Amino acid sequence: MKGYAMLKIGSSGWIEKERPACGPLDAVCRPLAVAICTSDIHTLWEGAIGERHNMILGHEGCAEVVEVGELVKDFKPGDRVLVPAITPDWNSLEAQAGYSMHSGGMLAGWKFSNFKDGVFAEYFHVNDADGNLALLPDNISTVDACMLSDMVPTGFHGVELADVQFGDTVLVIGIGPVGLMSVAGAALRGASRIIAVGTRPVCVEAARKYGATDFISYKNGPIARQVLDMTSGKGVDCVVIAGGDNDTFIEAVEALKPGGKIGNVNYLGSGDTISIPRVAWGVGMGHKQINGGLMPGGRLRLEKLASLVSAGRLDLSPLSTHVFDGWQHIEEALYLMRDKPRDLIKPVVKLAD
Amino acid sequence: MKGYAMLKIGSSGWIEKERPACGPLDAVCRPLAVAICTSDIHTLWEGAIGERHNMILGHEGCAEVVEVGELVKDFKPGDRVLVPAITPDWNSLEAQAGYSMHSGGMLAGWKFSNFKDGVFAEYFHVNDADGNLALLPDNISTVDACMLSDMVPTGFHGVELADVQFGDTVLVIGIGPVGLMSVAGAALRGASRIIAVGTRPVCVEAARKYGATDFISYKNGPIARQVLDMTSGKGVDCVVIAGGDNDTFIEAVEALKPGGKIGNVNYLGSGDTISIPRVAWGVGMGHKQINGGLMPGGRLRLEKLASLVSAGRLDLSPLSTHVFDGWQHIEEALYLMRDKPRDLIKPVVKLAD
Amino acid sequence: MKGYAMLKIGSSGWIEKERPACGPLDAVCRPLAVAICTSDIHTLWEGAIGERHNMILGHEGCAEVVEVGELVKDFKPGDRVLVPAITPDWNSLEAQAGYSMHSGGMLAGWKFSNFKDGVFAEYFHVNDADGNLALLPDNISTVDACMLSDMVPTGFHGVELADVQFGDTVLVIGIGPVGLMSVAGAALRGASRIIAVGTRPVCVEAARKYGATDFISYKNGPIARQVLDMTSGKGVDCVVIAGGDNDTFIEAVEALKPGGKIGNVNYLGSGDTISIPRVAWGVGMGHKQINGGLMPGGRLRLEKLASLVSAGRLDLSPLSTHVFDGWQHIEEALYLMRDKPRDLIKPVVKLAD
Amino acid sequence: MKGYAMLKIGSSGWIEKERPACGPLDAVCRPLAVAICTSDIHTLWEGAIGERHNMILGHEGCAEVVEVGELVKDFKPGDRVLVPAITPDWNSLEAQAGYSMHSGGMLAGWKFSNFKDGVFAEYFHVNDADGNLALLPDNISTVDACMLSDMVPTGFHGVELADVQFGDTVLVIGIGPVGLMSVAGAALRGASRIIAVGTRPVCVEAARKYGATDFISYKNGPIARQVLDMTSGKGVDCVVIAGGDNDTFIEAVEALKPGGKIGNVNYLGSGDTISIPRVAWGVGMGHKQINGGLMPGGRLRLEKLASLVSAGRLDLSPLSTHVFDGWQHIEEALYLMRDKPRDLIKPVVKLAD
Repeated sequence: MKGYAMLKIGSSGWIEKERPACGPLDAVCRPLAVAICTSDIHTLWEGAIGERHNMILGHEGCAEVVEVGELVKDFKPGDRVLVPAITPDWNSLEAQAGYSMHSGGMLAGWKFSNFKDGVFAEYFHVNDADGNLALLPDNISTVDACMLSDMVPTGFHGVELADVQFGDTVLVIGIGPVGLMSVAGAALRGASRIIAVGTRPVCVEAARKYGATDFISYKNGPIARQVLDMTSGKGVDCVVIAGGDNDTFIEAVEALKPGGKIGNVNYLGSGDTISIPRVAWGVGMGHKQINGGLMPGGRLRLEKLASLVSAGRLDLSPLSTHVFDGWQHIEEALYLMRDKPRDLIKPVVKLAD
Repeated sequence: MKGYAMLKIGSSGWIEKERPACGPLDAVCRPLAVAICTSDIHTLWEGAIGERHNMILGHEGCAEVVEVGELVKDFKPGDRVLVPAITPDWNSLEAQAGYSMHSGGMLAGWKFSNFKDGVFAEYFHVNDADGNLALLPDNISTVDACMLSDMVPTGFHGVELADVQFGDTVLVIGIGPVGLMSVAGAALRGASRIIAVGTRPVCVEAARKYGATDFISYKNGPIARQVLDMTSGKGVDCVVIAGGDNDTFIEAVEALKPGGKIGNVNYLGSGDTISIPRVAWGVGMGHKQINGGLMPGGRLRLEKLASLVSAGRLDLSPLSTHVFDGWQHIEEALYLMRDKPRDLIKPVVKLAD
Repeated sequence: MKGYAMLKIGSSGWIEKERPACGPLDAVCRPLAVAICTSDIHTLWEGAIGERHNMILGHEGCAEVVEVGELVKDFKPGDRVLVPAITPDWNSLEAQAGYSMHSGGMLAGWKFSNFKDGVFAEYFHVNDADGNLALLPDNISTVDACMLSDMVPTGFHGVELADVQFGDTVLVIGIGPVGLMSVAGAALRGASRIIAVGTRPVCVEAARKYGATDFISYKNGPIARQVLDMTSGKGVDCVVIAGGDNDTFIEAVEALKPGGKIGNVNYLGSGDTISIPRVAWGVGMGHKQINGGLMPGGRLRLEKLASLVSAGRLDLSPLSTHVFDGWQHIEEALYLMRDKPRDLIKPVVKLAD
Repeated sequence: MKGYAMLKIGSSGWIEKERPACGPLDAVCRPLAVAICTSDIHTLWEGAIGERHNMILGHEGCAEVVEVGELVKDFKPGDRVLVPAITPDWNSLEAQAGYSMHSGGMLAGWKFSNFKDGVFAEYFHVNDADGNLALLPDNISTVDACMLSDMVPTGFHGVELADVQFGDTVLVIGIGPVGLMSVAGAALRGASRIIAVGTRPVCVEAARKYGATDFISYKNGPIARQVLDMTSGKGVDCVVIAGGDNDTFIEAVEALKPGGKIGNVNYLGSGDTISIPRVAWGVGMGHKQINGGLMPGGRLRLEKLASLVSAGRLDLSPLSTHVFDGWQHIEEALYLMRDKPRDLIKPVVKLAD
């Protein structure tokens, strides 16, 4: 079969590989649509997960099942399915402890284009099909379905980590696709005021649709100072970090009330340490909780989040600004994500309706 | 001053009383608008809290502050304020334990028209003004403000007790004004499917606006059977009980998944016991959590919930179906609540803009 | 192989069966010791789970692994293992939701001597060996190890459900082996005062060792009245129900403070409903949370609880009052459990050291 | 009256002041015993809270009530009381949100020897007596009672922040008096293995009594490496930080499992930032929660923790290694705390039995 692969750090292209084998609990699937993630860019051009050779890229997509193992009970060839970026080993100690995304080791629930080939191929392998696939609801398009692999669960997890409650004022730092889903998630979880940090017009417009009430630009000075000015010096109840860098935590802690919570879902790609400001963190005792976590994957999560789309609570159409038809566009889509033109949110490659 | 009072069980009318005195932490307020609650009906005609003589009724309203005690720091005469039905003693052991509504004893955070005169009077007394009042935002009408005393916090508390999560299917039993706020709260907290039990057209229409996706009538057989039919036999993730009677818990438990939660905010007025179905409750081990709780009151809660209205997340206008102008209509409004005509949700008496 | 089986309701004896087959994820084990559970009595003589024919009994024991499936990674023949009464399907939706004990349906994580043969046999089958077995620490005897199958996790789960916090006053109703473990668990979780309901001297003595500070007898009148008398009318913070019947919930609710929690781990074997007292439950709004749940099973739980025994925090020796040597005593042990002589806590049959 | 005061940074001595006035909600108390806290050292010699002139020191002690305000209901002159270091304003928004220690601003629940005179005086003032005092149980000595002001609630709060569960392996960094209480709290909350970092023999001996199972010395290399070596590379479930400096968080994060939690109760006195190691923190996504918080104060907390001592669950006698008789020794005790001889845990000055 053909797959679009990372040949080595900095170099990618189509390769030929054997179709993956299907273990007793597994499924082999054929993509219906795939999307490019910033992580693909980090992996390929920044060596974020280290060197890899001829590893097929991609962890966002929906698919049709073509084969299932003999122990699979709930899926069969021909089923159209949602596929999560994170596919845990559900019987691991970590999953039993409630942290399935770290099954087998920290972050090791992330398998596609990390420990095995990804979804940018004619066929891809899914471990534990019953535990990790979900049926694609009829009223969700294959393009929107791609957003349920990573963007929705990651953005919403930021909201869960920041523990948004009815009437909270929430700061969302970064309004790329993940940050937009954090804005949507904060609104869906009962936030009142949502202050979004970002300036690209296409993102600002989408953020407003998703419920952002206020906007801040990095360019107008430190975020925290702007936030404190907007909140009579009180700060916000919650911060979701979906962009920025290691120093963003300084702003987040400074902008937060005592008793507030930070939920980071941003990949931190460089530097030795993340900095927490000592005084604003209450000299160690300010009850400003700092969370950061990989999205929960698996079937239940997919089903729940898809039900929000099916029920009309969440409109994913603003995310897919660039939709291509056919595998021949995968490289174009990938380069687009790398270059991030001003009008881009997410590039998707559609392979079937 | 004049006040509209319960003279004794079953009898009400205007009485003359002294204007309440203002302790060092307290405020005396003049109503801007008041609303009738079903609890007023229970109190007056059903003797729900026992006999009372010449007790001024009412615990829903907004007001203008006319006097404050010498220790009050954040309010002054002339301030327009929201007033919660529940006004806790914040330094009590119960409040320190997180259950301020039970400060001084179970349910004893409820003081208006229970342990002291209520708000249907020219002046009323508020204990701990700094802890229990909140400024009325400019963009909330005095009529809508009345809904923040009890309907919103009670309905939303049902959602908190039932612990609604992203993508949950939620059953809301009862769609009177509290149940409608539970529907709104469930949607605002990320529910996907919201199954509402109720049939009055004015309520069904409002419930649909607030996010209900499915409707069930008591008249079509047991609720649980209908719910199980609608959910492929799986049941719902959460149940909010905002209507019905002691036997409603049987339906709620039967309609619920293992691991699901029930949040009751319905007053249970008669009978010795509430029945939990043994087998459907997993012979004691089904992890179907049963919660029931009085709304949290106080200032922070008011500020947070009001911010949802101010920010445009929650539209309260559908609730106040019958708005009267002036104190002379209080009795008419009260009788309307008792008689519950088909087009009624809430009667409000407006005294100022 | 030979196994001691329920022949039909009310009748038991040795039967001959084929040794169970081992699926790719599974293990076949040989018991080192087994213990009798009251559930065996309910199953056999009361038909608690309905009719069964020639079903091998037993769900408490420790064992040696004799065979593992080809996908099992962490266990091998010869390993000495702890075995939980509850062996979930870890990739089920219920397990993903945090309720593994209900994987595949309410209570369906309980498989031994329910949906398949139990452990009172020369060999028994364990589904998902990696997810459900744990190595037996060297310093835990095979007799004590049997207590980790059900008594410890069930008793401790009552404490978790009742959410005991530092300095709480806890009522534990019932001091059979599960209730004793609830007493131990409450003490280990930071309770101050532990009021135990029970009178058998052997149990009272053990309860005192495990941390009970006060004792109540059913015979001296309603439990709740006694508890209120002992707590200046305030009631307790938490109630663990590990004995009694459907009406015990009335006492538990009456003895509980507003904001308190009930954790039931008692099997409720008859009657249509469980009764919650309306007034003591705050006419529906007293924030007295009612929980009831089957113990969590699986490997992580076993490892954690076993570590308490290994570290010397929990002494299980008082539980096994009657230890027999060899399979020939299984029936005697079973009858003993049925007849509950005054000096019995748990009967264990030891097959190897 | 006389009081022992900070005259300015670096200088202390006895001064004469007016006896504090008693507001309507307040109490004036006379110390029965007082203890020196490391915070007194930070305040006086390091200027931790900035410059202060003639501010009476001390926030640990127990006392006799000599006067109460007219609104105080539960205390009267002659009552012997426990006094918490943190005395919140219970009606503040922060307290209503569950963070009473930050009432009126981050850390502002700390009033003694911070915003007002402390307890090292013939008389001291307590705001909100009903909310902040607790009766001293008869079976707790005045010396032990001093440990309930700060050492016990702070040490135990570390355990709450780290969210210790049954069978957890817990790392406690620092075994001064607070760290010792974290060890005790971890054991009382169900930890199995407790790895303590510290070497002073008097502390090691006390830690062992309180439940520490393993000891680590800073001097043998990085803590994290030692912990990973002791746990087969898996790390611990929880870390309580009760000593060290800003870089201690690096060790804590590295020693922690994904899904683990850190609870810091250590005052961080210098430096701009605290460092979180990027890779060990899962490049932002490892679910290693970082908490740091000031102890909860107030009456309920005191009553609960005192009940552990009264019930014999917690023995405070190992803490008070140096007990002096009479006010004339206060300076000696203070200097002792500053100089920390090897055999010191806590110095206490007893004024009455």
